[in-house]
Amino acid sequence: MQVYLDNNATTMVDPKVVDVMLPFFSELYGNPNSLHKFGTASHPALSKAIDQVYTALNAADADDIVFTSCATESNNWVLQSVFIDHIVNGDKNHIVTTEVEHPSVLSTCKFLEEQGVKVTYLPVNEQGVVEAHVVKSFITDKTALVSIMWASNETGMIFPIKEIGEICKEKGVLFHSDGVQAIGKIPVDLSAVHVDFVSMSAHKFHGPKGIGALYIKDSQKLTPLLHGGEHMGGRRSGTLNVPFIVGMGKAIELATTNMQETMSKIRAKRDRLEDALLELSETFTIGDRENRTPNTILISIRGVEGEGMLWDLNNGEIGASTGSACASADLEANTVMLAIGADNELAHTGIRLSLSRFTTDGEIDYTISHFKDAVARLRAISSSFAKQQPTKGGEAQACEMH
Amino acid sequence: MQVYLDNNATTMVDPKVVDVMLPFFSELYGNPNSLHKFGTASHPALSKAIDQVYTALNAADADDIVFTSCATESNNWVLQSVFIDHIVNGDKNHIVTTEVEHPSVLSTCKFLEEQGVKVTYLPVNEQGVVEAHVVKSFITDKTALVSIMWASNETGMIFPIKEIGEICKEKGVLFHSDGVQAIGKIPVDLSAVHVDFVSMSAHKFHGPKGIGALYIKDSQKLTPLLHGGEHMGGRRSGTLNVPFIVGMGKAIELATTNMQETMSKIRAKRDRLEDALLELSETFTIGDRENRTPNTILISIRGVEGEGMLWDLNNGEIGASTGSACASADLEANTVMLAIGADNELAHTGIRLSLSRFTTDGEIDYTISHFKDAVARLRAISSSFAKQQPTKGGEAQACEMH
Repeated sequence: MQVYLDNNATTMVDPKVVDVMLPFFSELYGNPNSLHKFGTASHPALSKAIDQVYTALNAADADDIVFTSCATESNNWVLQSVFIDHIVNGDKNHIVTTEVEHPSVLSTCKFLEEQGVKVTYLPVNEQGVVEAHVVKSFITDKTALVSIMWASNETGMIFPIKEIGEICKEKGVLFHSDGVQAIGKIPVDLSAVHVDFVSMSAHKFHGPKGIGALYIKDSQKLTPLLHGGEHMGGRRSGTLNVPFIVGMGKAIELATTNMQETMSKIRAKRDRLEDALLELSETFTIGDRENRTPNTILISIRGVEGEGMLWDLNNGEIGASTGSACASADLEANTVMLAIGADNELAHTGIRLSLSRFTTDGEIDYTISHFKDAVARLRAISSSFAKQQPTKGGEAQACEMH
Repeated sequence: MQVYLDNNATTMVDPKVVDVMLPFFSELYGNPNSLHKFGTASHPALSKAIDQVYTALNAADADDIVFTSCATESNNWVLQSVFIDHIVNGDKNHIVTTEVEHPSVLSTCKFLEEQGVKVTYLPVNEQGVVEAHVVKSFITDKTALVSIMWASNETGMIFPIKEIGEICKEKGVLFHSDGVQAIGKIPVDLSAVHVDFVSMSAHKFHGPKGIGALYIKDSQKLTPLLHGGEHMGGRRSGTLNVPFIVGMGKAIELATTNMQETMSKIRAKRDRLEDALLELSETFTIGDRENRTPNTILISIRGVEGEGMLWDLNNGEIGASTGSACASADLEANTVMLAIGADNELAHTGIRLSLSRFTTDGEIDYTISHFKDAVARLRAISSSFAKQQPTKGGEAQACEMH
């Protein structure tokens, strides 16, 4: 059995999404900016896709949703262009963000620091979130932007976006949220919260890799990151990736229609898996389940290094992660776990399991069984764990860290 | 019959390219940065695609080829990052380019001018190219970059890249070329010319829209445009678009294998079409055929506005263009034709016909017939042409503008 539990890194493209994309490769392949029928033939499908995204997010007609190549581009765009518009060509010099943002936000902030911008990286609390009152206390009259994720890729913890949005509105500061891990998993109603920019990525909700979008409230000014032709009203240039835009529309529709019901099922599987794994001694999961995306577990197993565990799971045909796939090659300690105050040893033991609507009960059963065996195998060869192991085996010390 | 003659705007994805991409949507869908088998399963295909691009361009192992979302991104990347690396954080302040570059170069240059950069926009000669000695005369000790297209999207004219490269090397100035219209149409041997950066786009050679690349000679420094994770050695972040990278590799292989033979066939069809259309009175094509990409015609028909002609061709199921699709919505005069000295009236009459390896002889026959009828129809209702029309109908004034 193969079990894919790394859906926060990327997802399978839903075959229904592939179906709607296929005609736009070799049949309706014209450039939609062309004036002839080969170009205009894709317009109805593009319009439908745009409507699907607006509907899924309850965006207003006055808002813009601009397709990009990925959320990394969307995040870079907001940060770099707020820098141009409000720092280089304005009187601000400060950005507020968190220590646990996606690398595309953190690295861009580091780049902007090299250009002279002051960046405040807020720590998360022991629940893995940043509280709104903390954000408020760091906003100054020089702050151009607050950039805080909607939900964490590593822990699934949901940030208080509504409250932070109210604070930013009151303070007159732009607010950007990386919505990649929230959209398709929890309700994201852009008419019910005050947020100026939201980044999203299709491949996190069973659309293709290589297409994303940026929501821009009230079509407000934001200097392009990709300058060029007349595409998307001059906001983002580059020939439209028609099949992937059409696919993203279908994917977000599938992910958000009956989401509550779909997510209840995923949550039930996730909770069953989490409960079973917490039966293991000295095993901890991060964050209150009720404030977490319903598909995500970040679990620490004392005495079991994350990489070793991944290796054993991989041998069992189970795909999991130690955290962000974007930084998975460097085998560092889980940054979110360090941020919430885990000791360095524990931060090396984090394993992220992230489910999808395609995850089956049989896969959960198999994972529970293999996972428990793997922990036993790895603890048996772990010198550090041997020294600490309780005298009575099987003594459950499971708890959620809260 | 449907005839697509707008291949400089975009091309049909070759069904063989679609075939190699398909497994990477719903089967081998893992994030290639992940450590498990779902992620690593795509590595052989990615390696193969990279090899295919290196081989097609005869790039050296020491060079980098970094996948991007399109040539617009590649062009923006070079210009914006040379600005950061050599102007903001260096002692240069000048860029040399041409008046006829793609909008993604021209608009980025305009943006950089707003940031204080001096930009020289070189005019083209009556053949539609910029001569190397002209480039040389505008390089100063403050010049950071020369950015000149390899071949024109609008005319197909081929620029003297080898000579310009030698000059840039001698002067110690970085040289970027937008290679979008050259790759797959004429030999592009990156070991035989001195060029630091080359932009490319798969959808111009029967690959998908939404994937491109940037060639970087000797893996030299270039600050990323998209900051983030560890993708592509930190050069360009964002989850890899595996199917499109694999598709781009296949597409460039198909386009460059036996290119000489394929292009001879396309050239023969192009020449036959061009000869036939030049039988019409007061009709001109731009640029010496021998120095033009073998698939391209830019033709002017006095007394026939480009938009009217496009409309009539479109009614006949023929897709053509008045020039760049990226600016096609604004119905402006053809900028290249203005640049080569055409009067304003003539510059509104340009029609670009661009063939591909899928263009058939039957399509050429049909196009010749429909095109001639269309010109007759439109001249019959053209007040400006009626006044000028020669008394003897059918008197050929055809010539190439050279």
